[in-house]
Amino acid sequence: MSKSVAKFIKSLQLKKYRKQEQLFLVEGLKSTLEVINSHFNVRTVLCTEQFYEQFSQQLKGIETLLVTENQLTDVGTLRSNNAALAVVEIPVAKSKKLDTNKFYLALDDINDPGNLGTILRVADWYGIDTILASEQTAELYNPKVISASKGSFTRVEVIYGDLERLISESQLPVYGTLMEGDNIHKISFKKGCVIVFGNEANGISSKIKTLIDYKLTIPKIGGAESLNVAMAAAIVCDNAIRN
Amino acid sequence: MSKSVAKFIKSLQLKKYRKQEQLFLVEGLKSTLEVINSHFNVRTVLCTEQFYEQFSQQLKGIETLLVTENQLTDVGTLRSNNAALAVVEIPVAKSKKLDTNKFYLALDDINDPGNLGTILRVADWYGIDTILASEQTAELYNPKVISASKGSFTRVEVIYGDLERLISESQLPVYGTLMEGDNIHKISFKKGCVIVFGNEANGISSKIKTLIDYKLTIPKIGGAESLNVAMAAAIVCDNAIRN
Repeated sequence: MSKSVAKFIKSLQLKKYRKQEQLFLVEGLKSTLEVINSHFNVRTVLCTEQFYEQFSQQLKGIETLLVTENQLTDVGTLRSNNAALAVVEIPVAKSKKLDTNKFYLALDDINDPGNLGTILRVADWYGIDTILASEQTAELYNPKVISASKGSFTRVEVIYGDLERLISESQLPVYGTLMEGDNIHKISFKKGCVIVFGNEANGISSKIKTLIDYKLTIPKIGGAESLNVAMAAAIVCDNAIRN
Repeated sequence: MSKSVAKFIKSLQLKKYRKQEQLFLVEGLKSTLEVINSHFNVRTVLCTEQFYEQFSQQLKGIETLLVTENQLTDVGTLRSNNAALAVVEIPVAKSKKLDTNKFYLALDDINDPGNLGTILRVADWYGIDTILASEQTAELYNPKVISASKGSFTRVEVIYGDLERLISESQLPVYGTLMEGDNIHKISFKKGCVIVFGNEANGISSKIKTLIDYKLTIPKIGGAESLNVAMAAAIVCDNAIRN
């Protein structure tokens, strides 16, 4: 691998260059396989000989560079990676009419990339294929988001925009988790709806709060002051889906 | 702060020295306040002038060293800490008879400190005050566990030992999350029970599997291969508590 190729790939660790090049990185064995087998356009795969031998069928038609483990960790963000790294095109965002029979999540400034990635994984588990997100929410193509999502970024679409507008345009009933809501165990969710989760420190913003039709609370029995937002999302999704 | 004091505190970032000194670190504003107001014996608090002025009442009777933010991040593990760090005594482990009317979690080699901390927080939210853990489970006093638990380590006790023995001695019914279990939405949990969670990569070990009376599965609708173990714990606790 030439120095300029290494430098180019490394630059995609930064949002500025991802935006400029409209490319992002996918790292590690499982995630690379998921993205190769998804609808995403994979520009290049860097991989070890071992990975190549095992998955050469799936790499057909994709530009592939054989590299060492050290080279993978040099250009990527993972501490260890003995498999592969893919350079992938960021798909063009399309506007989308929401389905009145589906569940959607809406993220009001989720800052932490790990939380966003975990929420993608939870959404994917429960078959939620679209998430609405405020502009201030962590960027989907941040390597930490991609890594935490464990491949779920290939199945869950995140639509970024003015969250107030996105939610209003959906015309769906809106649920939100707040401190003073109704016990989530006693609520039956409408089949088509948007469920809002707020910022890690500040919760749901006042602008978005006014859109909420049904306030929810996860019952607390013990002493913890709060639940992590990804935990809350998991619990709420499980409750929404069980009806 | 003298160099030797700084070196001593820094050494407690490592398990070896925590074990030798029977001390551990608690960092950041909220966690420090939680531990000061808990049953733990706090040996020393290092804090900024601002923290001291705000909380001097609560610091009464505790050896307190005024330091700068830089000194806090130098000796501690957090990237930023403008408040405090406590040096706390590891309590002596006592044997304990489990209550036949309570829920307990059992952790079969949970390796990741972040996962253990998050599970403590979830347990605390749902009023679960005791967790059984295999010897190979991450160490409770690892700074990453303490930090992720957000103070819940002061309310949730972790009993380490031979997990097979700990579970058997409890004489409680045992639930475990497995791929091929019954839908968790259709199960009613017995009031006194142990719920087992397995290792991040390998799940529940075969030795522990033989102890499981009720196999559980979180229903999966979408494409994610798995849920993170802390997510699974949150969902299972919510289901157990709702009955």
